[in-house]
Amino acid sequence: MTEFEIIARYFARPVHERQGVGDDCALIDVGDHTLAITTDSLTEHVHFFADVDPASLGHKALAVNLSDLAAAGARPRCFLLSLSLPRAEPDWLEAFARAMFELAQREGCELIGGDTTRAPRIAGQDGPTTICITAIGEADRSCLRGRGGARAGDDLWVSGQLGDAALAVAHRLGQVQLDQAAARACRQQLDWPQPRVALGLALRGLATAAIDVSDGLLGDLGHVQQRSGVGACVNVADVPRSGTLRAIEPELQRRCVLAGGDDYELLFTAAPADREAVLAAGRDCCTAITRIGAITAEAGTRLAGDRGFDATLRGFDHFAGAPEV
Amino acid sequence: MTEFEIIARYFARPVHERQGVGDDCALIDVGDHTLAITTDSLTEHVHFFADVDPASLGHKALAVNLSDLAAAGARPRCFLLSLSLPRAEPDWLEAFARAMFELAQREGCELIGGDTTRAPRIAGQDGPTTICITAIGEADRSCLRGRGGARAGDDLWVSGQLGDAALAVAHRLGQVQLDQAAARACRQQLDWPQPRVALGLALRGLATAAIDVSDGLLGDLGHVQQRSGVGACVNVADVPRSGTLRAIEPELQRRCVLAGGDDYELLFTAAPADREAVLAAGRDCCTAITRIGAITAEAGTRLAGDRGFDATLRGFDHFAGAPEV
Repeated sequence: MTEFEIIARYFARPVHERQGVGDDCALIDVGDHTLAITTDSLTEHVHFFADVDPASLGHKALAVNLSDLAAAGARPRCFLLSLSLPRAEPDWLEAFARAMFELAQREGCELIGGDTTRAPRIAGQDGPTTICITAIGEADRSCLRGRGGARAGDDLWVSGQLGDAALAVAHRLGQVQLDQAAARACRQQLDWPQPRVALGLALRGLATAAIDVSDGLLGDLGHVQQRSGVGACVNVADVPRSGTLRAIEPELQRRCVLAGGDDYELLFTAAPADREAVLAAGRDCCTAITRIGAITAEAGTRLAGDRGFDATLRGFDHFAGAPEV
Repeated sequence: MTEFEIIARYFARPVHERQGVGDDCALIDVGDHTLAITTDSLTEHVHFFADVDPASLGHKALAVNLSDLAAAGARPRCFLLSLSLPRAEPDWLEAFARAMFELAQREGCELIGGDTTRAPRIAGQDGPTTICITAIGEADRSCLRGRGGARAGDDLWVSGQLGDAALAVAHRLGQVQLDQAAARACRQQLDWPQPRVALGLALRGLATAAIDVSDGLLGDLGHVQQRSGVGACVNVADVPRSGTLRAIEPELQRRCVLAGGDDYELLFTAAPADREAVLAAGRDCCTAITRIGAITAEAGTRLAGDRGFDATLRGFDHFAGAPEV
């Protein structure tokens, strides 16, 4: 069973709240307001290495949630933190909290509650550090968007560059050699992702559908296609990537760009008539955005300038294999 | 460092939201409405035994969060579930989900989002199952309450009975012998706590402060005293307990009643003038409530009919010791 099958089989129920509108977030109406709510966990050995810099972890744990709010076009408001730790280390906690609060303050998002517990020891070893954050933002009811609004003929866009985070993981696992500067550059992308909050807000009323790239381009594009009942054509050569990634061998480069997770860039669709407005939104936010393809009426994903869809390039699925430590 | 010191030192910041009003929940204003939001995690080996009935776990994971909403006098509305599992077992997931949804439906609370990940394997053993739920309720702005409203002279009340959950843990750990019926009865209290949602709502405008007893009576009462700047006198003999608990030896009985966690009853204060109204609220909800003492102007906790405050009877603190498995 995959992660997505587990959710579909055991936890998907018809709801009265506006959940269906935005899948990165649930949307609930409160009087005249609409709140976007999301929850995302990071678990040691699964989402981060045991020796991760605690500052980057504090940043990233909040960033991945703000990225979901960005996809929904919501303005971050507050968050709750649930922390499970093998022990209380002052230096670790200090660095973790400082970086988390720095991002929170920059994005106007307050910590309003939480829960702290100790992780159990297992077979004489520390249990995993686990960070679960729930973030709440204010959405604009007049222009709600989720994954289900893409229409045939829409442009397909992505912010920033894809694949560096996956390259950093491949390097860490010894699958690729990188010089020190290249390793540092892609590690930066893995450890300090920048949630595209301002872009998410600027795209209100422009993006017809949006999702953040957390599981890999093709996996997340697949979610949009499925929810919107459309297909897509991706011009693989147009997918933006760093100089570091361009320098590595083509097959790994292709895998990182098309299936690498953890990028937290926005993948979104918009009408061709709005092309100039979309580019202007990117400029206003000082965020590079690139048109990488189009939405098609026929189902499936076509990779132009590539050897075609490869089933092994699906997004990350937690239940495809258990991390061992 | 204790759990509470960690929170105070690293994570407590001045906030603009109404957090201070209700400590079991954060309170945020959304237009004319006020939402109560809470998050609580359950971790295997820490909060539950590895062989726990998955149905009771699904129930309890939601119940402990609804209990926080009850303390704040909020009406449950929706929740998010973050689940970390060592593997995907259909029978386990089926039972877990069914019981969780049964409670959710009974309390009018919808699952609106979540996150599912795989727990890492550690030293050849399964990593811990972890369930993190964030629950959201609607509070009544005209009568918000938290832990800080208790006044000298207020009555001190508790719902239901205390100590059976702690007795079940003591039995499980081999610290006490119980016959089968007694073991089953107290195990029921540990595994299937009933959040006092209706009572929490009925006490709106009556309770001056409220908290749910999750860490033990004296520990949770201490939170109320600290936040309200008051002391308390507890008539130990009046603290309600089951026949099972009355039958065990006095010292363990005393520890279970005064310091046993996991009861999820409501501990609250109210003016003596409202005594009849409080009793009527309990009757209306078919929930036993018992007056167990009074709030005092002088700081500290006095245990009437007992040998006095015992520092070892503080509430549960996760960082006081690491569970080993």
